[in-house]
Amino acid sequence: MYVKDFKWEKGMTVKKMVDDMANLGYQSVQLAKASEVIVKMKKNSAKTYLTFTSNMVSCGLRGFFAQVVKLKVADILVTTVGGIEEDIMKSLGEKFTIGSFSADDVELHEKGVNRVGNVFIKNESYMKFENWINPVLTKLYEKQKRWTPSELLREIGLILDDEDSILYQAAKQEVPIFCPAITDGSFGFHLYLFQQKHRDFVIDVVADFGNILFTSSYDEKKAVIALGGSISKHHAILSTLLNGGASYAVYMTTAHKTSGSMSGATTNEAKSWGKVKDESDVATVHGDVTITFPLAMIRALEIFEEEGLLPFGGKVDE
Amino acid sequence: MYVKDFKWEKGMTVKKMVDDMANLGYQSVQLAKASEVIVKMKKNSAKTYLTFTSNMVSCGLRGFFAQVVKLKVADILVTTVGGIEEDIMKSLGEKFTIGSFSADDVELHEKGVNRVGNVFIKNESYMKFENWINPVLTKLYEKQKRWTPSELLREIGLILDDEDSILYQAAKQEVPIFCPAITDGSFGFHLYLFQQKHRDFVIDVVADFGNILFTSSYDEKKAVIALGGSISKHHAILSTLLNGGASYAVYMTTAHKTSGSMSGATTNEAKSWGKVKDESDVATVHGDVTITFPLAMIRALEIFEEEGLLPFGGKVDE
Amino acid sequence: MYVKDFKWEKGMTVKKMVDDMANLGYQSVQLAKASEVIVKMKKNSAKTYLTFTSNMVSCGLRGFFAQVVKLKVADILVTTVGGIEEDIMKSLGEKFTIGSFSADDVELHEKGVNRVGNVFIKNESYMKFENWINPVLTKLYEKQKRWTPSELLREIGLILDDEDSILYQAAKQEVPIFCPAITDGSFGFHLYLFQQKHRDFVIDVVADFGNILFTSSYDEKKAVIALGGSISKHHAILSTLLNGGASYAVYMTTAHKTSGSMSGATTNEAKSWGKVKDESDVATVHGDVTITFPLAMIRALEIFEEEGLLPFGGKVDE
Amino acid sequence: MYVKDFKWEKGMTVKKMVDDMANLGYQSVQLAKASEVIVKMKKNSAKTYLTFTSNMVSCGLRGFFAQVVKLKVADILVTTVGGIEEDIMKSLGEKFTIGSFSADDVELHEKGVNRVGNVFIKNESYMKFENWINPVLTKLYEKQKRWTPSELLREIGLILDDEDSILYQAAKQEVPIFCPAITDGSFGFHLYLFQQKHRDFVIDVVADFGNILFTSSYDEKKAVIALGGSISKHHAILSTLLNGGASYAVYMTTAHKTSGSMSGATTNEAKSWGKVKDESDVATVHGDVTITFPLAMIRALEIFEEEGLLPFGGKVDE
Repeated sequence: MYVKDFKWEKGMTVKKMVDDMANLGYQSVQLAKASEVIVKMKKNSAKTYLTFTSNMVSCGLRGFFAQVVKLKVADILVTTVGGIEEDIMKSLGEKFTIGSFSADDVELHEKGVNRVGNVFIKNESYMKFENWINPVLTKLYEKQKRWTPSELLREIGLILDDEDSILYQAAKQEVPIFCPAITDGSFGFHLYLFQQKHRDFVIDVVADFGNILFTSSYDEKKAVIALGGSISKHHAILSTLLNGGASYAVYMTTAHKTSGSMSGATTNEAKSWGKVKDESDVATVHGDVTITFPLAMIRALEIFEEEGLLPFGGKVDE
Repeated sequence: MYVKDFKWEKGMTVKKMVDDMANLGYQSVQLAKASEVIVKMKKNSAKTYLTFTSNMVSCGLRGFFAQVVKLKVADILVTTVGGIEEDIMKSLGEKFTIGSFSADDVELHEKGVNRVGNVFIKNESYMKFENWINPVLTKLYEKQKRWTPSELLREIGLILDDEDSILYQAAKQEVPIFCPAITDGSFGFHLYLFQQKHRDFVIDVVADFGNILFTSSYDEKKAVIALGGSISKHHAILSTLLNGGASYAVYMTTAHKTSGSMSGATTNEAKSWGKVKDESDVATVHGDVTITFPLAMIRALEIFEEEGLLPFGGKVDE
Repeated sequence: MYVKDFKWEKGMTVKKMVDDMANLGYQSVQLAKASEVIVKMKKNSAKTYLTFTSNMVSCGLRGFFAQVVKLKVADILVTTVGGIEEDIMKSLGEKFTIGSFSADDVELHEKGVNRVGNVFIKNESYMKFENWINPVLTKLYEKQKRWTPSELLREIGLILDDEDSILYQAAKQEVPIFCPAITDGSFGFHLYLFQQKHRDFVIDVVADFGNILFTSSYDEKKAVIALGGSISKHHAILSTLLNGGASYAVYMTTAHKTSGSMSGATTNEAKSWGKVKDESDVATVHGDVTITFPLAMIRALEIFEEEGLLPFGGKVDE
Repeated sequence: MYVKDFKWEKGMTVKKMVDDMANLGYQSVQLAKASEVIVKMKKNSAKTYLTFTSNMVSCGLRGFFAQVVKLKVADILVTTVGGIEEDIMKSLGEKFTIGSFSADDVELHEKGVNRVGNVFIKNESYMKFENWINPVLTKLYEKQKRWTPSELLREIGLILDDEDSILYQAAKQEVPIFCPAITDGSFGFHLYLFQQKHRDFVIDVVADFGNILFTSSYDEKKAVIALGGSISKHHAILSTLLNGGASYAVYMTTAHKTSGSMSGATTNEAKSWGKVKDESDVATVHGDVTITFPLAMIRALEIFEEEGLLPFGGKVDE
């Protein structure tokens, strides 16, 4: 493929831009390729695991993730608990603010503000979450004593009535959300306090390992879109591997492979799973996910839309 | 502090080198400062939380972590489950190999080799782990049906008889190991298979939230040494925060704050916890932990040794 | 400013997307801000210095840079010599290929191919450049013996007749190109061989320092758009500083400030120049320039187009 | 090579630590390898090109570079002009300060302080340089009108009488310093002002291209140690390439190959030069050079010292 001089055209669409990036070097071509891998995985009916970290929900990709779930582009979600808390907060009407990476942290603390990069979350938002989650836990406990994280999150999603909520859309579209470290956040603290009062209340993370395993079969085509690293990425890869490996993989990250971290691991490894047919089925894009993911996914959505594929599998609800 | 021209001296020790790095710019001075913060936290009897990710165990820092635990420099550990699996594998005599970051992954796969950066782990090592863990789970299940991860890991540590094992040293020194995502690995799969046969077997992650909370009190001084990011770092920060915040913090990472990730979050935020007295109580070092952590910690250990402080708190065992 | 959930709309334009990124955290908001700073600098008639490194020309941003010059959005260019060589090669009809970052370098060498990241350049292209540049040098030498790099590059640009050439558009629009390290490339070798035959042939880099100084005055508003780092970025900042400092600055880079490098230096420093009015006049975007620069610049171009501002200052030629 | 658990030993030397890092994964093993490549290049009498960027001089590696030159471990230097200015300033008694990466730049500006990462340089230091360089230029101009950068820097080095000065040691040991962008700094401004008064004063960068070419021959073994990126790295690689390519290469950088920049280019490319015998002759280390270079070089120096090899080639002067 030849390098082709990139040029602006008046009224340029995101799709046209990403199309043209296929002929631009470095991470541009990687991004265009990632978009194409997403198109391939869906057209080939691969079960698609989308993983992301909490900070991506806080920053405003929440609505986009919810949209992607609504359109059935993602079939299974894996994430960390902070994003779940923040998804709920926003459904409860809380707002986050965009500030500066170099804000005065002592001053923020005095104002009761928590900083996630350049995104600010007020203590009040956490309190609102707390007030809301406790009666929900009581109600769910009345139903059963032992919950897996994915079942718990589904029930919560059904309660929320918010088009832009990831949990709501996931529950509605029967897209399970896995959260292997569900106690690693404010939610964990509330689960703990609840358990103090109800000793037979149990979160069964072990059973959820089975649940994620059974989201796909060995023979089924599988695909992983991993945004950032952490256990979300690791958990999706692990569970597809135990079912024979994914056929398609897109990793988007700011980390590099040189440190040996999961965050920086590239899709090259995916080739070792034995299912990837060729180089064109995987793509790693280095860069901030708030920029790279919308670009790659929007081009894919435009193509799906043009071809009348949205929502995939037809509407489940309504 | 003035920049002072760095010079080599014959037979230079690590301690002398890190001392001199205090007058070298960029990450050198940060590393020297991190070492000094470690000295301060221990001399001021702060409860010290050491967090690390799995890949750091695989690469060979395992023995150093075990040593640091044995010398009671770390009081609480937080980590991900991969490192626990690999700690056990090595105690069972398995060996890992150092290869190349750009090894042919398809070829490795055919040979039954898994790659973590430039570290290779054979499938056989996972099988050896599997064969060993199953009877252990049976035995523990006979004792009780409901285990928190930290209790489970303590029991496993007591069985291992290996000076270089993190689990063994932690169990011996009564240093708890927290692992909020204990199912995110091969261990999770074995726990799942075991639970299939024993439906009343439960891993109680919620109760462990209480356990980590009670490792320190509000009034006690607390310190966090976070190597890499992930939920290990987040969980330690969260639990010290709920007890009023740490007084000392050292973060070592290859990530940058610009992506808003936990991995890249700097110790500047620690100042917002209201307990850090001044700038000299926190340090963030950017760089590969396999290089930066030994340098900073060895200088601290040499100082502790000179002053007859090792092991901290006197020997627990023997 | 509140975080606003990002959403895809059918047929979404780049402008709409970048507009929406202003409400997305991390590097998205930085990118939207960078776009806005570009709009401000041009509407406030600031002399605009655009700097980029050679690899950005090779990868296909060449045509976009040429377009930006043609539209008079950039008033002064600063770059390294590799990009100049490659601009000429492409004007001579040579093509570069997009390959893989992990191509087999020994094999490429045997095929006479040079690798710049994932962009490949054939030896033949260098030979074509060599054959073309030598008669040009002879002709220019007949005109005068002592040339500054900027004068030399202007003459070369006038000879090239290629809409997509940076040198051609720059010469046509009277946009000077500064290249303080003009010998650091294949071009340097040919200059050297030429000088061996013509001892009185001189490239006067010292005089070009004066030329760049006089591209703007102390009282005039100045702006710097620095893509990547290297001496290109440093040289533009230095020369605006000697004239009192820029009023606007946009830096786009993959480097981080933690290493103390010029590449990683952020626009925060620009505030120390005493001319920047407030925080909204500067923006640093971390990420691959092949992705971030087109996004930010296209939004600006769309706004300029809507408001009938293109080309700035009216057409010089035609 | 097996991973071996790293352990601290009382009084551990840098050499012992780097030896042990050969059995630690990720960048540790790369660093140990880099040290070994340095040992090999010198024992095999390769002409050794050491390149570094200005910021490394400012931060305090200056004295170490001077020491390395004094011991004849480096045979040719390539750098940018900022480092030369700062080497002179320090020889004139100026001191730089270590501050913070997040210092208030507006405040620093008001105090007349310039920031390079976390290293601060006062305006006075630049003025002292200015006052000193002008009479030197006058004196050199009386000798001849046309100077290459390397000849000019040699003359300046001979004037400085400072053991810790890079320029002084280089001049004394007949180690040439190449600086292809000699005008890109305060020095450039003074050269320009001087030329305004002496129109026939010329800095001949083209002739210096010949000078660096003739520092080694095609048949001679060549080695490159590139610290950071920029034109320093590029220029050394280019000139060894034109002589058939280096046999050994060590690159130390914080940049990554994913952006296609020179700074991030790895030594893998060196294998394409056709002279590298095998994988063990090249090493790329990712990390801050203020940490990685002293570690790798000190181990090499200890080995050279033990074997009575220092200074290489015997003493030139004294």
